[in-house]
Amino acid sequence: MSAIDVVIMAAGKGTRMKSRLPKVLHRLAGRPLLAHVLASAAALGARSAVVVTGHGATEVEAFCASWAGASGQNHPEIALRHARQEPQLGTGHAVQQAAPQLPGDGVTLVLNGDVPLVRPDTLRRLLALAADDAIALLTVDTGDDAGAYGRILRGAAEPDGDIPVRAIVEAKDASPDELAVTEWYSGVMAAPTRLLKKYLALLTDDNAQKEFYLTDVVKHAVADGTPVLALKIDDAVEVAGVNSPLQLAELERQVQQAQARRLMTDGVRLADPARFDLRGQLDCGQDVEIDVGCIFEGAVSLGDGVRIGAHCVIANAKIEAGAVIHPFTHIDGGKEGVVVGPGALVGPYARLRPGAELGPEVHIGNFVEVKNSTLAAGAKANHLAYLGDATVGERVNYGAGSITANYDGAHKHRTVIEADAHVGSNCVLVAPVTIGAGGTVGGGSTITKNTPPGALSVARGKQVSIAGWARPVKK
Amino acid sequence: MSAIDVVIMAAGKGTRMKSRLPKVLHRLAGRPLLAHVLASAAALGARSAVVVTGHGATEVEAFCASWAGASGQNHPEIALRHARQEPQLGTGHAVQQAAPQLPGDGVTLVLNGDVPLVRPDTLRRLLALAADDAIALLTVDTGDDAGAYGRILRGAAEPDGDIPVRAIVEAKDASPDELAVTEWYSGVMAAPTRLLKKYLALLTDDNAQKEFYLTDVVKHAVADGTPVLALKIDDAVEVAGVNSPLQLAELERQVQQAQARRLMTDGVRLADPARFDLRGQLDCGQDVEIDVGCIFEGAVSLGDGVRIGAHCVIANAKIEAGAVIHPFTHIDGGKEGVVVGPGALVGPYARLRPGAELGPEVHIGNFVEVKNSTLAAGAKANHLAYLGDATVGERVNYGAGSITANYDGAHKHRTVIEADAHVGSNCVLVAPVTIGAGGTVGGGSTITKNTPPGALSVARGKQVSIAGWARPVKK
Amino acid sequence: MSAIDVVIMAAGKGTRMKSRLPKVLHRLAGRPLLAHVLASAAALGARSAVVVTGHGATEVEAFCASWAGASGQNHPEIALRHARQEPQLGTGHAVQQAAPQLPGDGVTLVLNGDVPLVRPDTLRRLLALAADDAIALLTVDTGDDAGAYGRILRGAAEPDGDIPVRAIVEAKDASPDELAVTEWYSGVMAAPTRLLKKYLALLTDDNAQKEFYLTDVVKHAVADGTPVLALKIDDAVEVAGVNSPLQLAELERQVQQAQARRLMTDGVRLADPARFDLRGQLDCGQDVEIDVGCIFEGAVSLGDGVRIGAHCVIANAKIEAGAVIHPFTHIDGGKEGVVVGPGALVGPYARLRPGAELGPEVHIGNFVEVKNSTLAAGAKANHLAYLGDATVGERVNYGAGSITANYDGAHKHRTVIEADAHVGSNCVLVAPVTIGAGGTVGGGSTITKNTPPGALSVARGKQVSIAGWARPVKK
Repeated sequence: MSAIDVVIMAAGKGTRMKSRLPKVLHRLAGRPLLAHVLASAAALGARSAVVVTGHGATEVEAFCASWAGASGQNHPEIALRHARQEPQLGTGHAVQQAAPQLPGDGVTLVLNGDVPLVRPDTLRRLLALAADDAIALLTVDTGDDAGAYGRILRGAAEPDGDIPVRAIVEAKDASPDELAVTEWYSGVMAAPTRLLKKYLALLTDDNAQKEFYLTDVVKHAVADGTPVLALKIDDAVEVAGVNSPLQLAELERQVQQAQARRLMTDGVRLADPARFDLRGQLDCGQDVEIDVGCIFEGAVSLGDGVRIGAHCVIANAKIEAGAVIHPFTHIDGGKEGVVVGPGALVGPYARLRPGAELGPEVHIGNFVEVKNSTLAAGAKANHLAYLGDATVGERVNYGAGSITANYDGAHKHRTVIEADAHVGSNCVLVAPVTIGAGGTVGGGSTITKNTPPGALSVARGKQVSIAGWARPVKK
Repeated sequence: MSAIDVVIMAAGKGTRMKSRLPKVLHRLAGRPLLAHVLASAAALGARSAVVVTGHGATEVEAFCASWAGASGQNHPEIALRHARQEPQLGTGHAVQQAAPQLPGDGVTLVLNGDVPLVRPDTLRRLLALAADDAIALLTVDTGDDAGAYGRILRGAAEPDGDIPVRAIVEAKDASPDELAVTEWYSGVMAAPTRLLKKYLALLTDDNAQKEFYLTDVVKHAVADGTPVLALKIDDAVEVAGVNSPLQLAELERQVQQAQARRLMTDGVRLADPARFDLRGQLDCGQDVEIDVGCIFEGAVSLGDGVRIGAHCVIANAKIEAGAVIHPFTHIDGGKEGVVVGPGALVGPYARLRPGAELGPEVHIGNFVEVKNSTLAAGAKANHLAYLGDATVGERVNYGAGSITANYDGAHKHRTVIEADAHVGSNCVLVAPVTIGAGGTVGGGSTITKNTPPGALSVARGKQVSIAGWARPVKK
Repeated sequence: MSAIDVVIMAAGKGTRMKSRLPKVLHRLAGRPLLAHVLASAAALGARSAVVVTGHGATEVEAFCASWAGASGQNHPEIALRHARQEPQLGTGHAVQQAAPQLPGDGVTLVLNGDVPLVRPDTLRRLLALAADDAIALLTVDTGDDAGAYGRILRGAAEPDGDIPVRAIVEAKDASPDELAVTEWYSGVMAAPTRLLKKYLALLTDDNAQKEFYLTDVVKHAVADGTPVLALKIDDAVEVAGVNSPLQLAELERQVQQAQARRLMTDGVRLADPARFDLRGQLDCGQDVEIDVGCIFEGAVSLGDGVRIGAHCVIANAKIEAGAVIHPFTHIDGGKEGVVVGPGALVGPYARLRPGAELGPEVHIGNFVEVKNSTLAAGAKANHLAYLGDATVGERVNYGAGSITANYDGAHKHRTVIEADAHVGSNCVLVAPVTIGAGGTVGGGSTITKNTPPGALSVARGKQVSIAGWARPVKK
């Protein structure tokens, strides 16, 4: 089979999005629309992709560069190129701009940057049609009225059973009989590059809109005796484009439902698939339970038996077997990641930030924030506390309301709390500082110097009482 | 065109609501049903509205008074009157109670206080029909069975194309042929007041229910040779009434979906329109993104590029361009309002209360509460803190766990933290008190007196350690 | 009527659940599937139930034991027995294992442990059919294609109007005419035990799967001249089984919608019934309002006029009349329970844990945790605080950031704060300790000894300032 080169139409303005952001950079399931299309191209094993840019070209090209260079990229390699289309003179004109970068020995697949859900398998079947020196069109027939889409007019059946396409007729130019046709053109085309270039060269803008239409390739192919074949699908979602925030929201729900179904088929128990959002990659072990209203972003893995309570937001984290995340927990590992060890209990209302690493059976309770800190097995911070830039040993008990003062206004410093130490309530540990193993810090102490192992350390005013003191009285 | 006077039926008990609250005061999208109807009347430019009260009359009338007197009212002026209907002897009887307050020179529009979604444009078209000395009925035809509704029986077509109404027949009195009619009466009527009063005077309660029916006006009009015209709509939601909590919940979703669509059409990006609740007015700039599960109440404005994270509750607030509100944030400006300055970062789990005013690039982090305080540009309170009745200068860093003790048990006092000051962790600032510009307050200090600018101020016990101290051991 | 004995099929593996947990122990609306079926059996007044176990038998039997022994059990008494089915040789084989425990004088009802929603009323009607010495089958006819289900073939009508069942034919063995039958067998059967045992004894595994089918009972009954009658229902949800996480999620939504409707019919106002989850028992007074995204677990009661804000999680709690729960509140009373007194205000972001008892008009504000503590009328803890093992008197004001240090590393101790005391901000009360009535504790104090009533008590360092102190500067 010939090498595949993909042209991705990404020059459109997307007026109805009413956004400063180029349309193809709007996010679906956490990724720009264009990223979905690029991933499909890469999944096909395409040799190259030429992204045709126009509106917001700089931003679109910058995104492509970051996509191509993404470390740990999840897609096969593909050579990414751009072609600027300025001004925008129609779909045929767009592909013409890309043509010089398409080697003549391959087959070209034309995709739309705002049509994110076309399946690689569908594209493979389309490319197989084009392999026989044919123009191959992806068409849709749901049995319903085709609305404003271009109708597919078929010719007589061939001996081999194919019913080739005779023409694509625009809805506004169609006769009543033609309008009744329910098969319509999706905008996706595959063609031997040699033939495509031949017909692209024949396009004219001799029409009402003064545009060069890619669909006119069909006319020239038919005239030239080149077969035009159609791969007809019945799932319009695959070729649904995004032209407005409403369409984007609808497609988002389609993607989310499909993802939820996939996870449930694998055994994940979702309390309500309609209230589940995955914007990235979620890997789950056995017997994972996810309550309503949870959102997962980036790369998240959940070990066997993990339970996620209601209304949690979890990004870039590894949560190990048996851990329980209570409701309203916010975990975002950013680039550093977050690790929640096996059997750990987190939340409700816990916040784990980049670099939080909880060992086995660690407990992080309500209103506790952990950032760039490691907690060894069995350590606990159950109430209203802040642990930042801290190294916390095994079985440490970190009291309610206690704070690591890790920032001196200029630099961050480290707090070390050694194994079996107990830090009382409302303490301040002014970093850099070490709490010795097995030591105790009395409640309300501000600790500025290292404390010896095994000792009770306090820094506290003497308690006095003034009898008969009158509190202010409301005037 | 004649002046419009509106009669609003608001005397019903609403037994199926099973509530102590009068039915018309139940809230839809944050406002009582009656407020929706009053707003429609006002939007029409009606001269007056007579609210017919009965069950819960005192409460309903009190609401009307507050609605009429609302400062900053968003509706054109309209004279609001009441008529008590006691006892309730039917819909015709209700309008009879209002009749003495309806000037004879106008046209009367009869609305139901529990039918909140009828569109002013529909009502204008209905009033246009009545303008020709006709009784005008708002009818619905969805093509489906009309159930228990009164069927509209039409006469022969007039030369001008109108097909006047011959009669309204109650479902229980209808013949099989009549039952098959899918056009039904909505309860909304417009009529020249002079004619309406004439026919109201002819009503009798000579029927099974012993009630005076407003629909009998049609019978008397027909007998009198007055044309009865119908404005037929096909959207039953417009005239849907609320008789039970279930119907209220269904209508709430209808309203919320319509609002969500309107915002998306304007370019707002909603992650899931089915999980978006707006109970008031939301004004959005360009490129606003709102994640799932957010609720907006009162008057909220979001500037260009504002992003609202998942599961936020935001009321009466102005959030300026580029600000980012992280998940689980609760903002309620109450009467004083809240302002979040451009580029500010708020949350997760932040709470902004009335009078919180954040300047540009201010950061308010997790488990932080701000009330009646201004924070100047670049100030930060990132963790577990309370700022109440405080004036915070530029670039101030307010430490984790620190508290303004603004309440002496009787009065609230002000805390001033001047520019570039740093307040350490777990401090208490006992108001009234001023932290001088550029000064530092050591962690764990309770500050009761003003601190000099540029100084390090501490109030802290001396740190001591008692070696070999044995922690209590579990018995 | 004869005594009822129930056989519950609970031996299946549930491969598609992909879970270590036996299928019948998966939870629907907070309870294992099997618990729903057992509750139905108990509601019928059945004399005994024999649970046929196999896969995960130990776990299933342990659950049955706990169900039977549940203190405060909400179901009538029923004798629970088990029968092991090992290996699993088909549905008929399963009932054969139970047969020795079924007294010959009764009627046997065969239920599936993974079909949780069959209504007791439906079962009563089925049992009435069996009462006439007939085999009674529960069948479903929705008018749609019956898919893979066994078709019900009916005979000629009897003089009494019954149309007895001739046979059940498996979909894969059915002729085209038989496949067109839309009535199918649900798997639920009732039969006089004497007859059932007779036909069970005749079952063979002479078929492709080498299994003993319960449906073959029909064949033997027909051959024997025993009437086979069908109770046909049209709601497939009643007999829907759970074979995968997707089906479980779908059934969960069915249950939740039904529960939401029931509550709304009783007058409860749900902002969105599609975002409401009840996993237990919820009792509501009049005029209760529940905002979106709330979850109720265990036994919860809400008094008249209670309002629950958005995104709350509430379990095992009694919330009394007029109390308001603000958004993001987490209440879990566990076994001890939580009480929120009349008119109390709780949240946002409040957490009430087991043993929290709030008196009338108590206020618990944001980021406050209360555990095993009683607060008397009018007490307030409004900001960032922890109250554990505390007894708090009337009108006490517990300051922001204050903590009861109730745990000495080995034991929990009690803090007593007497009436009218004020505790300042960021205090630590080291238990056991008593704050005397009307006393004041100065902000930032760590209190280790009892304080006298009416006195001002402080434990605080002296405030000093070091002029010209230079904060570290970023290198």
